[in-house]
Amino acid sequence: MPVLCRPAVHVPENVITQAETLELCRRLHSDHPQLNLALRLIANTGVQERHLVQPIDETLTHPGFHARNDMYEQHAKKIVPAVIREALRNASLDVDDIDLIIYVSCTGFMMPSLTAWLINTMGFGLGTTQLPIAQMGCAAGGAAINRAAEYCQVYPQANVLIVACEFCSLSYQPTDTALGNLLSNGLFGDAVAATVMRAQGGSGIRVHRSGSYLMPGTESWISYEVRDTGFHFRLDKRVPRTMEGLAPPLRRMVADHGWDASELDLYIVHAGGPRILDDLAKYLNVPAGAFAHSRATLSSYGNIASAVVLDVLRRAFDDPATTDGDKCLVAGFGPGITAEFCVGTWVTQTPDPVFRARADQQRARMLDPIP
Amino acid sequence: MPVLCRPAVHVPENVITQAETLELCRRLHSDHPQLNLALRLIANTGVQERHLVQPIDETLTHPGFHARNDMYEQHAKKIVPAVIREALRNASLDVDDIDLIIYVSCTGFMMPSLTAWLINTMGFGLGTTQLPIAQMGCAAGGAAINRAAEYCQVYPQANVLIVACEFCSLSYQPTDTALGNLLSNGLFGDAVAATVMRAQGGSGIRVHRSGSYLMPGTESWISYEVRDTGFHFRLDKRVPRTMEGLAPPLRRMVADHGWDASELDLYIVHAGGPRILDDLAKYLNVPAGAFAHSRATLSSYGNIASAVVLDVLRRAFDDPATTDGDKCLVAGFGPGITAEFCVGTWVTQTPDPVFRARADQQRARMLDPIP
Repeated sequence: MPVLCRPAVHVPENVITQAETLELCRRLHSDHPQLNLALRLIANTGVQERHLVQPIDETLTHPGFHARNDMYEQHAKKIVPAVIREALRNASLDVDDIDLIIYVSCTGFMMPSLTAWLINTMGFGLGTTQLPIAQMGCAAGGAAINRAAEYCQVYPQANVLIVACEFCSLSYQPTDTALGNLLSNGLFGDAVAATVMRAQGGSGIRVHRSGSYLMPGTESWISYEVRDTGFHFRLDKRVPRTMEGLAPPLRRMVADHGWDASELDLYIVHAGGPRILDDLAKYLNVPAGAFAHSRATLSSYGNIASAVVLDVLRRAFDDPATTDGDKCLVAGFGPGITAEFCVGTWVTQTPDPVFRARADQQRARMLDPIP
Repeated sequence: MPVLCRPAVHVPENVITQAETLELCRRLHSDHPQLNLALRLIANTGVQERHLVQPIDETLTHPGFHARNDMYEQHAKKIVPAVIREALRNASLDVDDIDLIIYVSCTGFMMPSLTAWLINTMGFGLGTTQLPIAQMGCAAGGAAINRAAEYCQVYPQANVLIVACEFCSLSYQPTDTALGNLLSNGLFGDAVAATVMRAQGGSGIRVHRSGSYLMPGTESWISYEVRDTGFHFRLDKRVPRTMEGLAPPLRRMVADHGWDASELDLYIVHAGGPRILDDLAKYLNVPAGAFAHSRATLSSYGNIASAVVLDVLRRAFDDPATTDGDKCLVAGFGPGITAEFCVGTWVTQTPDPVFRARADQQRARMLDPIP
């Protein structure tokens, strides 16, 4: 029974406040025909502060895709290991205990993925499976949780490490001045988060059931245009209103489990923006306060892409109101437009002794006992 | 019990022979200090022909990363649907029956992945899960097979569609003239392959057990440098000799299943190059002829990256010597250096009636019966 443990979250030291963001927008786009609308949209995000891997002046320059991607790699190598170590401690596990690393990130591209470097550098077993996901954007956090739960179901001694590394500021494109870009420039932040899904033992969300959904005809609404200057983010103005279409499949999945999506105890939902949260509350018929942890992430870090759901989960761990038996929903939304969601129950367990008979580097992964 | 069904494979219409490749290399690199070595290496690949998405003159131009990536998308949209339809027919399934699409490709980058377009365009259920993998290179074919088998193990009514879309020629970099690049320019080809893993019914390889392995300290041996001009392939001269390190974990995984890697009936192994195949035969102690299907893929298509294992499997289906009960090994190798492998038994079954009670767009994905 897969249990999603307490995440570790790191945000970089460079902070930009909303007031500074608005001032920058005013200064950089003083002659933009929709400047006032952009300022109003940014003010309405509810993002008070964001954390960036570089000081703001450097963030605003574009040294080319090559240099940007190198920077992604350098910052990831600097930040990710400590976050992983904290996530492992949170799950009472060591690097040896991890069978699968799911590494999600849409803000830099490496082949091989950072997973190879992590295994070589941090001492994970050489039989550790790597699953890098680069093309699911903000939905990748939910996708990673669902794939991790499945893996734990197949291999009942498994532990899966999930890493979400998002340096959204490294996709800042100075020449993109569509309204959606101006808004995005005031919305997204940088963060690294990690957590472990344990097949046995562990405290957190015991995952019961998951689901995926693609909202038809919305491929272009959240997307990258891949250009010589790197990833250019495209955000359609219809995105904030997508919850009307995404709430029904969410409700159905919860109902399939015999629960009512309006009456759960804990909502770990992607904080794509304020309208996303307001509308989801409306269409799920839950009080606005139900998404307090998501709003806290949005307010203090901005939209940190696939890392949002892990940061929201961290806040649930820190909240004394979180109680054993709480009925939980986890939902990530991103390009596609894709939703990845699951339901589970909050459990507190003493971690089971980890199955340590696998001294060999080659893990036994039996699917089918027939020889 | 997951069964990997007959793949469909498409290669583009533009053909370049080895003689033409050698002539081109001579012409383009007439003053290269290692020209003769490059020509010898290319001649030794055993690649007789390759198929490319563009005529050779256009292949040799570099219109920029933006245009290249657009071309990737256009060719993928043109070619992939028919290959999928054939793969579905091979598995006696329809688009409605697919629960998960694993789309692997390292030669173009889209967000959202092509999976969103495929669902919208081909009529897959809106609850279909998407798993795009872009960062595993040639190993992604093996990885997709292993992840598909696990998914079928978790959801015993599931069907997983695997798509490998590799247009290696769109990563040709005219300015890269290291010896490894000259060799790569004569080695890689373009192809699209697709297949289905069925949790119930189906004929092909019934997967019993899988494994992963990272060869330590080899991250940089096969890699992309991501530059303003796109993906620049880096191939270390030590790569052809990696089988000495990869054969032992392969042997161990097979032994864990109670079989002997030297005595299997069918080897579906990645045809990275001739030395890879020769050395793997040597270290697994199998006759050179054991890899005949891999050699046929290499000879007629070149190294088609993640699509190789699917094309090799297709040849096994076409081979009258393939028999029920055959003990099979599937092995993909790629950047990391990562190996993804599994063992299984060849089975011929009448496809079971597909579980069609899931009329709802939202598939039931229960992990844990406790509410």
